[in-house]
Amino acid sequence: MSDAVSPLASPFPALPAIAGVTPHVARAGYKDWGRCDLTYVELAEGTAVAGVFTRNVCCSSEVEIGREAVKQGRARALVVNAGNSNAFTGYRGREAVEQIMEQVADHLDCTMDEVFVSSTGVIGVPLPKDKARAGVEAALVAAPCSWEEAARTIGTTDTFPKGALATAVVDGRTITLAAIIKGSGMIAPDMATMLGYIFTDCAIAPGYLQELLSAANRKTFSCITVDSDTSTSDTVLAFATGKAGNQPINCSGCPGADAFAAALDDVCRQMAHLVVKDGEGAQKFIQIAVSGAVDDESARKVGMAIANSPLVKTAIAGEDANWGRVVMAVGKAGEPADRDRLSIGFGGTWAAKDGQPLADYDEAPVAAHLKGREVSIEVDLGLGEGRAKVWTCDLTHGYISINADYRS
Amino acid sequence: MSDAVSPLASPFPALPAIAGVTPHVARAGYKDWGRCDLTYVELAEGTAVAGVFTRNVCCSSEVEIGREAVKQGRARALVVNAGNSNAFTGYRGREAVEQIMEQVADHLDCTMDEVFVSSTGVIGVPLPKDKARAGVEAALVAAPCSWEEAARTIGTTDTFPKGALATAVVDGRTITLAAIIKGSGMIAPDMATMLGYIFTDCAIAPGYLQELLSAANRKTFSCITVDSDTSTSDTVLAFATGKAGNQPINCSGCPGADAFAAALDDVCRQMAHLVVKDGEGAQKFIQIAVSGAVDDESARKVGMAIANSPLVKTAIAGEDANWGRVVMAVGKAGEPADRDRLSIGFGGTWAAKDGQPLADYDEAPVAAHLKGREVSIEVDLGLGEGRAKVWTCDLTHGYISINADYRS
Repeated sequence: MSDAVSPLASPFPALPAIAGVTPHVARAGYKDWGRCDLTYVELAEGTAVAGVFTRNVCCSSEVEIGREAVKQGRARALVVNAGNSNAFTGYRGREAVEQIMEQVADHLDCTMDEVFVSSTGVIGVPLPKDKARAGVEAALVAAPCSWEEAARTIGTTDTFPKGALATAVVDGRTITLAAIIKGSGMIAPDMATMLGYIFTDCAIAPGYLQELLSAANRKTFSCITVDSDTSTSDTVLAFATGKAGNQPINCSGCPGADAFAAALDDVCRQMAHLVVKDGEGAQKFIQIAVSGAVDDESARKVGMAIANSPLVKTAIAGEDANWGRVVMAVGKAGEPADRDRLSIGFGGTWAAKDGQPLADYDEAPVAAHLKGREVSIEVDLGLGEGRAKVWTCDLTHGYISINADYRS
Repeated sequence: MSDAVSPLASPFPALPAIAGVTPHVARAGYKDWGRCDLTYVELAEGTAVAGVFTRNVCCSSEVEIGREAVKQGRARALVVNAGNSNAFTGYRGREAVEQIMEQVADHLDCTMDEVFVSSTGVIGVPLPKDKARAGVEAALVAAPCSWEEAARTIGTTDTFPKGALATAVVDGRTITLAAIIKGSGMIAPDMATMLGYIFTDCAIAPGYLQELLSAANRKTFSCITVDSDTSTSDTVLAFATGKAGNQPINCSGCPGADAFAAALDDVCRQMAHLVVKDGEGAQKFIQIAVSGAVDDESARKVGMAIANSPLVKTAIAGEDANWGRVVMAVGKAGEPADRDRLSIGFGGTWAAKDGQPLADYDEAPVAAHLKGREVSIEVDLGLGEGRAKVWTCDLTHGYISINADYRS
């Protein structure tokens, strides 16, 4: 955790315990820092698991192994290493992951592929096996910790711990989803994610949980960007212990399936927004709402082109309603657009309509809107019914300071 | 022109006069600044023209009109307005361009489509017709100016005037290419360019000139990026007056065709590098050489993914040999790559080979290399014979300062 907390930080929510889930933290000492950096979460037998992973071709061994293991659908434990991503470390990195899986599987008397491992931090340094072994050993005997401690322990350049909560009534029972997530830079998940973990007591079949998680991902994690850089380690896993005792959900027609899906979407959206709000150097949270595109996916791509434009992001940092830069970003997105039908607004006030600045455009309400912490940009392409919302943060001196100094 | 000159600036070269080309500058007063902002270049009858333009869908009227006009292959004049890009200004913007074309065509007794107009500056404000008319009127009667004055006059956020020179022997005669270019931010031409003008006394058929310019563009302007943002006004035009008196070149087998093509490539490469060296906030010029890709275009795309990565660019700004960020950028490029065959070096020293950090990697020579103004990154994908070089600059506090303040 960094010292200077993001001005967009939210207080950590009061996350309840989830039956069948027990988090612990320990010090592996992956970096020379006086904090816990290994998180171990024990899961009850029969816990279902689903996951989405980075599409970065140069992904870590953790991602490769996790992507395979999630297919069998069951999990008994999660281990998260902070301070070393173990990515681009060849066979030595892979051996370290397998050692952790074996150590935990021996302890729980489960199979290795029921143990999920993630690592986050610097790329290119093999995870030291001795530190990992001692860290896991300590975590296995540590007293259970709070969600907030776990959320702090998985963080690296994050400036605040991030948690999310949602509930739904399923089969007459209230089920709970508790989630923790880390992420601040190298954030442009595009069809994947950062490190995020969702725990629920809901009973749900792994295949259907995967289907719902993938759908939620498309609307949430795939719609955020901090810096357009896609990490080699992005992972979101959802664990369902089934301890709520509901009739297991296994299809979209099942009682409670819609309620659970809505709660899962809600918690994923909260998590995605928290990552943007801790974007490196972020001073403002930006929502970009695109309408009138030829379809929803085209709207999302136009939104992401705007969200990834350094010129748009610096304009917002400067509280400048520079809609010309938004026009530029729409035009370079590679999606259908017609300059003469394009309209652009800020905070609900149109600045330009149908390809021209509005003659009676009043910049005063827009200027006031841009001074706030939460900024919205509205773009209407005037072509069809496609729409999407994406989220990003502004690009400030803080981003440069953080990233021109990190590592070495 | 900005006050603080880029540390990467080159002195303006001694560009000779080109027979048949006469530059003039005047004050249109597009902005409230005490400098010339309208450039008028008169071209001898029979001058051939070729051009490449932005692919941004929201392009300016200047680009739309120029793209059509270049097809007829002849030019008599060039007018460049600085301080107002006239983009996203609807019919009013188009009328201003047509007024300039008509005014100059009347003066020269030529057709309107032989008058090429470009504008650069803020987006969304229609070019004021009265200022344009008075500016053109002044320019038509102004004394001829130097190339350096013209190069200064087309600039906006540029910190130094940019010129390039090349010669070739064609048909026993030495022909000359003189070029001026402007550009500093919103630079990611990708198949197009910024505002650049090449003047030569060579006799060459317009169609063949276009072919050579497009080929040069692919290797030069399409291989640079400052900030991944593609302008709405990018234009490069080449004018050939034919005054050298050589046998006109009209095909690749013609005497002197190869020499002329090499000189054109050379001048385009010089121009492209100058724009990067004046990249907003640039402190270092970065060359990225990619080899071992499945083909050259794939190598170029991998190179551009690295060149556009904010995390790579800030690492270079911090003189940090953070090759893990290069791995990340290779992996997100969307091109064929194999993590376990990937090698990465800086300034000729390999840091990682075949997917792993080198055991005997000595960071000392790399650290020394990164302290310089010119940095090279080498990436070998280990897959095939495809190779490309691309160029960018580092991402610094200067970029943020420039772009969080500009306009409004």
